[in-house]
Amino acid sequence: MEHNISKAVIGRLPRYYRYLGDLIDADIERISSGELSRIMQVTASQIRQDLNNFGGFGQQGYGYNVRYLYEEIGKILGLDKTYQMLIIGAGNLGQALANYVQFEKKGMYIAGLFDNNPRLKGTLIRDIPVRMMEELPAFLAENHIDIVALTLPKAGAIAACQILMENGVKSFWNFAHTDLEVPEDVVVQNVHLSDSLMELTYKINHR
Amino acid sequence: MEHNISKAVIGRLPRYYRYLGDLIDADIERISSGELSRIMQVTASQIRQDLNNFGGFGQQGYGYNVRYLYEEIGKILGLDKTYQMLIIGAGNLGQALANYVQFEKKGMYIAGLFDNNPRLKGTLIRDIPVRMMEELPAFLAENHIDIVALTLPKAGAIAACQILMENGVKSFWNFAHTDLEVPEDVVVQNVHLSDSLMELTYKINHR
Repeated sequence: MEHNISKAVIGRLPRYYRYLGDLIDADIERISSGELSRIMQVTASQIRQDLNNFGGFGQQGYGYNVRYLYEEIGKILGLDKTYQMLIIGAGNLGQALANYVQFEKKGMYIAGLFDNNPRLKGTLIRDIPVRMMEELPAFLAENHIDIVALTLPKAGAIAACQILMENGVKSFWNFAHTDLEVPEDVVVQNVHLSDSLMELTYKINHR
Repeated sequence: MEHNISKAVIGRLPRYYRYLGDLIDADIERISSGELSRIMQVTASQIRQDLNNFGGFGQQGYGYNVRYLYEEIGKILGLDKTYQMLIIGAGNLGQALANYVQFEKKGMYIAGLFDNNPRLKGTLIRDIPVRMMEELPAFLAENHIDIVALTLPKAGAIAACQILMENGVKSFWNFAHTDLEVPEDVVVQNVHLSDSLMELTYKINHR
């Protein structure tokens, strides 16, 4: 059932998950697609279509069970598992992620932070010491890593990605200002901040 | 000509701009749509269609003039102008942006940083002192601000957005874990890091 799900639907699932989490926080147990549509500002038919990709979750006239839907979408998104994350680049952005990820998400563990700046060596961030890049292959040989966040400049990110792939890493959360070239079995999720800022300047000039 | 441009096309323009910038850095003056297609890993027909939205820029058989295309796309994205940006939330993420934005983009100036943590008061970040939130209305009365980056938790972001809109701000780059409710003349560009991370965990589980 989960096979030909469009990228657009996948892109919307985290937003459903976020809104459903807010509803749980507000002690709301059931919600109609109409009400969910109102708070999420998407059409009720879009919501029904999106959720039908995964079997529906709703009963006509009864609305959705908020916690059930939240947990099912969580499973689809892989949030019923735990992940060991490495952060490469322990500058402000890497440190922000180290703090952010644990705040926002259960099941995501920071397994290590690496940098090539010797002044950062041994600095503790959330009790994790910053390690030097030359220690990376040995670290990867001894630790299972699910996700690597690349929070360093372009050239360093490309070089680090190569070393990481040679040592078995297959999933990247890439913040560097470049698209990584990777084989088909490697997944990359990009956060291109300057692309995002340019979309904003476009909107400012065309509102 | 620029009127009914789809969101998808707009979303791809910053990527064209980024690749064209790389070509300029590599001293490449002209490029065929076929070659641009190869390096960007999109079809040549997609490239021609996207650029035709803005008048084309290419001559059959001659390819694209890289610098001309770069500058024209830059103008469409509003990058021929300058912007005064305020950063609300001077934690790691706010500091990362203060550093990042100036590195990556010409024309984007950090006009100020605000936080509600008294321990940060007066701290200099790129020579800009962190100011306290209560100083914000007076600051906005005296300074023209084009963009406000919200790099603070959800509740604070919603409250700050309200104050900022009351004081005339109409453009937000929102990093808080929520969608802001704004009137139609206000533009918001979201960077939802945890949504992005969930798309990655989805991909990991469905590759």
